[in-house]
Amino acid sequence: MKLPILLLSTALVTLAHAAADALPSWADSASKKAIVEFVGKVTTQGPHFVPPAERIAVFDNDGTLWAEQPLYFQALFVFDRIKALASAHPEWKEKEPFASVLRGDVKSALAGGEHALLEMTIATHAGMTTDAFEQTVREWITTARHPKTGVLYTGMVYQPMLELLAYLREHGFKPFIVSGGGVEFMRPWAERVYGIPPEQVVGSSIGLSYRLEDSKPVLVKTADAIFIDDKAGKPTGIQRQIGRRPVIAIGNSDGDFEMLEWTTSGAGPRLGMIVRHDDATREWAYDRESTIGRLSRALDEAPQRGWHVISMQHDWLVIHPPTR
Amino acid sequence: MKLPILLLSTALVTLAHAAADALPSWADSASKKAIVEFVGKVTTQGPHFVPPAERIAVFDNDGTLWAEQPLYFQALFVFDRIKALASAHPEWKEKEPFASVLRGDVKSALAGGEHALLEMTIATHAGMTTDAFEQTVREWITTARHPKTGVLYTGMVYQPMLELLAYLREHGFKPFIVSGGGVEFMRPWAERVYGIPPEQVVGSSIGLSYRLEDSKPVLVKTADAIFIDDKAGKPTGIQRQIGRRPVIAIGNSDGDFEMLEWTTSGAGPRLGMIVRHDDATREWAYDRESTIGRLSRALDEAPQRGWHVISMQHDWLVIHPPTR
Repeated sequence: MKLPILLLSTALVTLAHAAADALPSWADSASKKAIVEFVGKVTTQGPHFVPPAERIAVFDNDGTLWAEQPLYFQALFVFDRIKALASAHPEWKEKEPFASVLRGDVKSALAGGEHALLEMTIATHAGMTTDAFEQTVREWITTARHPKTGVLYTGMVYQPMLELLAYLREHGFKPFIVSGGGVEFMRPWAERVYGIPPEQVVGSSIGLSYRLEDSKPVLVKTADAIFIDDKAGKPTGIQRQIGRRPVIAIGNSDGDFEMLEWTTSGAGPRLGMIVRHDDATREWAYDRESTIGRLSRALDEAPQRGWHVISMQHDWLVIHPPTR
Repeated sequence: MKLPILLLSTALVTLAHAAADALPSWADSASKKAIVEFVGKVTTQGPHFVPPAERIAVFDNDGTLWAEQPLYFQALFVFDRIKALASAHPEWKEKEPFASVLRGDVKSALAGGEHALLEMTIATHAGMTTDAFEQTVREWITTARHPKTGVLYTGMVYQPMLELLAYLREHGFKPFIVSGGGVEFMRPWAERVYGIPPEQVVGSSIGLSYRLEDSKPVLVKTADAIFIDDKAGKPTGIQRQIGRRPVIAIGNSDGDFEMLEWTTSGAGPRLGMIVRHDDATREWAYDRESTIGRLSRALDEAPQRGWHVISMQHDWLVIHPPTR
């Protein structure tokens, strides 16, 4: 009977080690404590136990799992697509907001706010097959580089969040992305970078049309059926695709307010967290006045709603993965 | 070292036993052989290996996982809802197709075909919160009984398909329902009956509106954003919610044609199967002339497309679970 005892003691040591070390990039502060306590509580038999099938955790993407400055990265992808497609669209030279993008004037291009961004997104994405779009995203994400840091965009992910995703998975959680970004912009790399498979990515979308091209079926992206997975769209997207209220929701902006509200107003234990960008040295510092990732109401109401505010400056020992 | 060897040999015996016994309700015919050979091929290292993350299997529901005669069961649910809500809708006494339902005249109620069914579905589902709707479905599915057999509708599921779902899961597949039925009609019981969690159910849907009621957030079903997950809507629903082309697709009607076409035209090994209702003794026999579950084009093209036709009469030793 020596072998089983040896195996058992090894297993116990491994478990203890894993618990201590699962979140090494998180400071030993209130945020880490809240996570570890919550996970311990819902995975232990007792009054707060949550069965594995109900352990749904939803994460915003832009500003929560990866950076979002100086602009949402998909906006930079759209700008690159406008430049790539410009020769086929001579009218864009005279037509705003496309003309501003082609002149390199980002500020004017975005003067129309989210509406302008949506218009450019649809103009560059609609008409492509899903296969061609996926290929285009794959090429861009493995070659394009962040304008400030010069690293690949996938190197702009947050190391503490990668550890949190792994920690939750180890404890039987199923993490989903629930993002205002395009679902088909995220899926081609979310599995490799975050370990989140395509079916666990919820995002904004446009229509799809099924047809035959050279007698091969294709799905073509269309300019109708526009779904914006932001603000009240997030609980809608969660219900539509997941069909179960999450027990954990983590975001970083007022666009995540309703997702946090919907999640944490469910019965039983729920965890809501907000990543606060307050580290101007290692990342960016912005909240109420920012057009990207504006955080105001959710910050004000966090205490009364029991939402934990994660300080990037104080709670994260490391921001990005060491090799990228 | 005796213990490990004993464990290993037990494991091998268990594996062999499981392989032999995993599909006991399937006759040793071409259909069972096709399933076992396909699963063996894609789960064995070699040229046809499919990584676990890509082992997506999609199943139609009505007529594939459970029966669909004399009417789609959700239509019978809608009729019951019309009767339950009639006192709040005095106008239905004079208004078709509602008036026919209230008179018990199913044939006239369905004279308008799918359009009439959609109208009745929206009229009875829209305006409810998702929580209230779920509760209503749960009550109905645990109390209402099939008009011919007198058993609960969940007793009308097909035993060979329950075995197939378990067999696929054991081999690392993730089974999804992709049905023309309402996604929120299936989710409340699909996990208990099929072992398929809500996030793996793709179906038709209407809109959702997020709002506060007595300062509690709710999602209310709305009469817009109608998505019909049937015919070309099935590949669309698959792409929207799963985001990856399946490797196995199983249906039973021409409504599944595009799902089978989309699945089996992908590169690498793919398995397409059609359940043929040809057992008038133990179930029902219908195909080309049926308004419910019409099977004509998919049957004609099955041989050239390499789709396997499952004969309920010959391939299934048992139709429904023994206790129900």
